[in-house]
Amino acid sequence: MKSWFRVQSIGTVIRPDDPGGDSGYFDPSHPSVIEIDDRWIDGLSGIEDYSHLVVLFYLDRAPRRRSTGQLLPAEGSEALPSVGFFSTRTPKRPNPIGISCPRLIRRERNRLTVVGFDAWHGTPVLDIKGYSPRDELRPDWTVPAWLETLWATHDAQRPDGLRLWEEER
Amino acid sequence: MKSWFRVQSIGTVIRPDDPGGDSGYFDPSHPSVIEIDDRWIDGLSGIEDYSHLVVLFYLDRAPRRRSTGQLLPAEGSEALPSVGFFSTRTPKRPNPIGISCPRLIRRERNRLTVVGFDAWHGTPVLDIKGYSPRDELRPDWTVPAWLETLWATHDAQRPDGLRLWEEER
Repeated sequence: MKSWFRVQSIGTVIRPDDPGGDSGYFDPSHPSVIEIDDRWIDGLSGIEDYSHLVVLFYLDRAPRRRSTGQLLPAEGSEALPSVGFFSTRTPKRPNPIGISCPRLIRRERNRLTVVGFDAWHGTPVLDIKGYSPRDELRPDWTVPAWLETLWATHDAQRPDGLRLWEEER
Repeated sequence: MKSWFRVQSIGTVIRPDDPGGDSGYFDPSHPSVIEIDDRWIDGLSGIEDYSHLVVLFYLDRAPRRRSTGQLLPAEGSEALPSVGFFSTRTPKRPNPIGISCPRLIRRERNRLTVVGFDAWHGTPVLDIKGYSPRDELRPDWTVPAWLETLWATHDAQRPDGLRLWEEER
């Protein structure tokens, strides 16, 4: 059975003020622009009627994972249990594909301005879909206890008044 | 800038009772098994502590979209407005990658039994992530009016008593 496939960039993340790389704090509340290549513009018709997008992007600066390797805690935190990479959001994966569900602020022709999007400047975009609750909303979610601990740590480190995400259960 | 990338199958969808192809009703409430290749098993450690997964899969039987083409209504319904392909979930995309957020029922070594998963038997799987509300839950979603119309049509066609999705707003 065929086991490798080709995927192509259909657009690019524009975020020129981003420090890039591992330097500095990445602020997902800062707007990003997703610039779709001209040949696909007509495919965007009607996308502006969605409040949120599902964006797939290729993590072109992440090394591809070649073996499972040893189990590690998320973000290298010694306070958390070690888990497999599928249980984390590490970009080092067999297929370095990221998913993000940003809010769509506006569309100007082939430029989609979004917030809550965590891809670096220059990242190749693979697909855009409208966020659909029947496909992506799972209100009865539960997650590992260590992940809730990690969130609490992140929340404590975040600048006062900056809320990236409104929890509703 | 590089515009094509390679992705690999890391597992396969097992759904042997599925009629396959366009024939018959595809029931997402029927369990599927995602069988992860042996070399990646250790990466699954801890995945069973998530209630839901985010699964990326390669739509290997969908023709790749080579041009935007004309605008069409979703599912070819004459009652709906014509929109671009990014605004629909058509599998005919520049990159035929599907996303699904099924419920994880159990894990047995490299076999993940899930429900609410809409990929055909034999579909190559590209990535597994634990469903994380901070990444995928967007309770303040809105969608185009035509999509709500389409849902109502689907709901009316569904066998009595079968609810695939519990809405909570």
